[in-house]
Amino acid sequence: MSTKGLLVILSGPSGSGKDTVLEQVFKKEPQLQKSISMTTREIRENEVDGRDYYFVSKEYFEKQISAKNMLESAVYSSNYYGTPKAPVDKWLEDDKTVVLKIEVQGAEKIRKLYPDCVSIFIMPPSLKVLEERLRGRNTDSEEAILMRLEAAVGEMQSAEKYDYIVFNDVLEDVVDDVCSIIKSEKFKSLRMKNKVREVIKNA
Amino acid sequence: MSTKGLLVILSGPSGSGKDTVLEQVFKKEPQLQKSISMTTREIRENEVDGRDYYFVSKEYFEKQISAKNMLESAVYSSNYYGTPKAPVDKWLEDDKTVVLKIEVQGAEKIRKLYPDCVSIFIMPPSLKVLEERLRGRNTDSEEAILMRLEAAVGEMQSAEKYDYIVFNDVLEDVVDDVCSIIKSEKFKSLRMKNKVREVIKNA
Repeated sequence: MSTKGLLVILSGPSGSGKDTVLEQVFKKEPQLQKSISMTTREIRENEVDGRDYYFVSKEYFEKQISAKNMLESAVYSSNYYGTPKAPVDKWLEDDKTVVLKIEVQGAEKIRKLYPDCVSIFIMPPSLKVLEERLRGRNTDSEEAILMRLEAAVGEMQSAEKYDYIVFNDVLEDVVDDVCSIIKSEKFKSLRMKNKVREVIKNA
Repeated sequence: MSTKGLLVILSGPSGSGKDTVLEQVFKKEPQLQKSISMTTREIRENEVDGRDYYFVSKEYFEKQISAKNMLESAVYSSNYYGTPKAPVDKWLEDDKTVVLKIEVQGAEKIRKLYPDCVSIFIMPPSLKVLEERLRGRNTDSEEAILMRLEAAVGEMQSAEKYDYIVFNDVLEDVVDDVCSIIKSEKFKSLRMKNKVREVIKNA
């Protein structure tokens, strides 16, 4: 296990509230390094290009894939999502904790590339709440909502592959939970053993 | 992995400050169930029988071992230390989080009996600080201090066998760290997967 940096990947179906959770996590722990994804999906109200995602054209995205500049990329609800590779590696080398929001398909690839990463799956408390949240968003057509619901259930089938699963019921609680998980991972003995050896050496 | 309760074992050499840390952890998280050990060592100033340990005679302790009433027991600095088994199993069955302070030798046995337990090793920040703490205690003879120091280094060799290692530098920090570790363990996907399946089932 590398003792350099810590890569945290976070997934959750559309409507699980992962964006709000992450926003609060970054507010609470400003030293965390946010990895910004690239997508070809349309920008939503309240979203900012370069803060929430890099919103790019399909052509530009495909050029980045060809140039092997992407850590992973996946198609989800007919749009590309992906993570530029270079900044992640640089941050890890600089011993930072990098938090990466990622779709379920992308998470599988990241786990293979970075086996020491920590993965967290955000679950909606129930399907009923999930549907309410998707409808409350008022940005999607009925057809899109049903597609997202179906996709959500599909993604939940992958929850068990993650290291941790957190149910997003009360926002403050889930923010605390995610912060605790990230914090405690740093105390894993594989990450600390060199520090212990350093102390013993002086005996 | 059993979804019933969570067993947390915590070790650390004499002078690592594990008792003070645990005291604050229980103050902060009063729902945690403290497991009280039994020992034949002499009671120290400020210690209370039945709160810090059950202080018993060598004869009584040996009778408990013979009756197989002990989860584990070990000899450390010429004294017996051990954990009565029945209450731990009862608390776990009641879905409680049981925190067990235990010597390094005992921890090995517990890990075999309860493979799902979570183990935390408390490290002193340095050998210098450890020696200062042992001397500051003013309860031990010079010979006892040197024996404890030697034993401490021996115990630190086992730190890597624990799931987590936390350095006890600033008390508040280490209390927070231990609480975070205990909290986040409950979100391990093996413990949460049944809850996820419950949600998916209704789709």
